[in-house]
Amino acid sequence: MEKIKFKPSTLLSPVPVVMVSMGDKNVSNIITVAWVGTVNSEPPMISISVRRQRYSYDIINKHKTFGVNLVSADIVEKADWCGVKSGKEYDKFKECNFTKFYGDITGVPLIKESPVNVECEVKEVVSLGSHDMFIGEVVAVYTNASLSDNKGKLDLAKANLVSYAHGEYYALDERLGFFGFSVAREEVLRRRMGKE
Amino acid sequence: MEKIKFKPSTLLSPVPVVMVSMGDKNVSNIITVAWVGTVNSEPPMISISVRRQRYSYDIINKHKTFGVNLVSADIVEKADWCGVKSGKEYDKFKECNFTKFYGDITGVPLIKESPVNVECEVKEVVSLGSHDMFIGEVVAVYTNASLSDNKGKLDLAKANLVSYAHGEYYALDERLGFFGFSVAREEVLRRRMGKE
Repeated sequence: MEKIKFKPSTLLSPVPVVMVSMGDKNVSNIITVAWVGTVNSEPPMISISVRRQRYSYDIINKHKTFGVNLVSADIVEKADWCGVKSGKEYDKFKECNFTKFYGDITGVPLIKESPVNVECEVKEVVSLGSHDMFIGEVVAVYTNASLSDNKGKLDLAKANLVSYAHGEYYALDERLGFFGFSVAREEVLRRRMGKE
Repeated sequence: MEKIKFKPSTLLSPVPVVMVSMGDKNVSNIITVAWVGTVNSEPPMISISVRRQRYSYDIINKHKTFGVNLVSADIVEKADWCGVKSGKEYDKFKECNFTKFYGDITGVPLIKESPVNVECEVKEVVSLGSHDMFIGEVVAVYTNASLSDNKGKLDLAKANLVSYAHGEYYALDERLGFFGFSVAREEVLRRRMGKE
């Protein structure tokens, strides 16, 4: 197993790819970002990294709130478009035919066509170099009703979420296991994986 | 498209799942984390979030370096195991039959069986609540030679990387597009996607 050494680069993969929405009832925009991650559990927090010169930067910084809208396969082309075009030139909600709704807590605009919307309140901004990292506390989560069964249990697998690796968008395929499957009892494996 | 509102939770999906290695030639450990992300491009930076009471926390904090070892489908069961067991009780390199090699810059132990290894130097620690976020600058990247073609071009698709969504590990499936495909010319789409 020979290794090749490369110079430093952003090779972490796969990463999430989400549409970040920001603003209020008057001004709004959407940017697609892959520099996003969960950074804390209690309270739940998400970080997004944005270049300071981007049109959206000042909007997030002013309102101290952003929405994280997950990307399903059916809207991946629109998500890609929101990542290459600027809000200076386009009303992206309009161009993408996206329906706006507003977060209960902060009033941030969210994208109805996205299967899962996470409303975040900015707690901290950390300058890192090319990007500033906005650390947002999750204040509410909205999901499509069709993702829950009649007992209210959420099944995210139904959402056909998209992953991003080295510049390419991928569908999720075969389920390989679940957290703890390496130490699970036979009966649990059978029930959750259909394995003997 | 009816929405259901949920209380705040860590619902960002899919997220990466990586084995973080730490220590030196004497003390080493591996933890599997999903609270990891790229946070800056120039210089490239990765953040990982770790609970302060975890055995690995003090090791990272002392050495100010960590390795991010990407997870391919063939080692996902070992990665899961490294996520549920503690380094207090197990020598995880040994138990998993992993081969150690050391980062050129920091001396951090890395996992040879992982297809891509990212060597990071801690630049900042941000306390967030349950977790502390270590912000690491990427100082070198190592990849399996088999992932590069004879011109040295890296093809990460060959690595069979694993994604993590809502407690489940997934293989990546169908390629849905590439960054910019929504605005690409016909000839580029044809060449890169095999589409007419």
